[in-house]
Amino acid sequence: MSAQEEFGIRPDEVIIELPATPDASLYFIGHIRTPWKKRADCPKNARGSEAVCTVELDARYGDGLKDVETCSHLVLLYWMDKAPRNLMRQAPGHHGGAQHGTFALRSPVRPNPIAMSVVRLIKVEGTKLSVVGLDCLNGTPLLDIKPYLPSVDSVPEAVCGWRLRKD
Amino acid sequence: MSAQEEFGIRPDEVIIELPATPDASLYFIGHIRTPWKKRADCPKNARGSEAVCTVELDARYGDGLKDVETCSHLVLLYWMDKAPRNLMRQAPGHHGGAQHGTFALRSPVRPNPIAMSVVRLIKVEGTKLSVVGLDCLNGTPLLDIKPYLPSVDSVPEAVCGWRLRKD
Repeated sequence: MSAQEEFGIRPDEVIIELPATPDASLYFIGHIRTPWKKRADCPKNARGSEAVCTVELDARYGDGLKDVETCSHLVLLYWMDKAPRNLMRQAPGHHGGAQHGTFALRSPVRPNPIAMSVVRLIKVEGTKLSVVGLDCLNGTPLLDIKPYLPSVDSVPEAVCGWRLRKD
Repeated sequence: MSAQEEFGIRPDEVIIELPATPDASLYFIGHIRTPWKKRADCPKNARGSEAVCTVELDARYGDGLKDVETCSHLVLLYWMDKAPRNLMRQAPGHHGGAQHGTFALRSPVRPNPIAMSVVRLIKVEGTKLSVVGLDCLNGTPLLDIKPYLPSVDSVPEAVCGWRLRKD
């Protein structure tokens, strides 16, 4: 299956030309183990599953985990390496087929396919973290782990208007 | 001033060797305009200022903004290009001088210096977004704009234990 088919890209979606050269580089600092081996198996959103997933941090970064075990929730950033990067409007099937801008969607399809998920931390054992709240494919590359700080990260009253109109 | 001095790296902090080659590449999709020209001027956290900042998205990505104006809050990812990437334990001055793991901190110093901020959207004009809730330097490169979805992003009861003990 091509990436275009896999991600359901349609002929009327808006495709752009990306810059000729990139601007910065990333290191994959580990990988995420989940029960999902195909995109179709993944939960539609990160609260759609209570599955415990495993974040395997590479050993060289292990010292960076000091005090992480005191956090109830973490922000994980990870790399959606299978997603096309040149699509500016998308019509995700589960949002009724209407087109929305890439930056109004949480789709993995975006110029920098960095996904962000808030997860609940179950335990830390060495460089392995058990967490709940992921929806990504098994083997997804990890980019960052941050403490979730409700004082700056939690906005219960936030509204995403176009989604409300669909619900 | 060297990066080591600028970021206050101390002799007892843990420095690692990074991988020889990077794993993926980023495009800067725009830049952020803020009132802060030196790191010392930036607010200590993103709710420390009511300053209205401007996100300038490059024109080629403009189609991706469709429906973003219906969102009250956004997640911005941006690149802390001045930060060292090889430090696994850090002793930020404003946390009392004790060492914490990089992944238990929101410091810009991390293997992939991607910062994440939740901002309040004031208005969208063309490819310029006016937002409140940033604490970064003027000219910071933009990586991504996402809708903030309280159903998956808001966890008011989350706790970061080591920080509570300091407060």
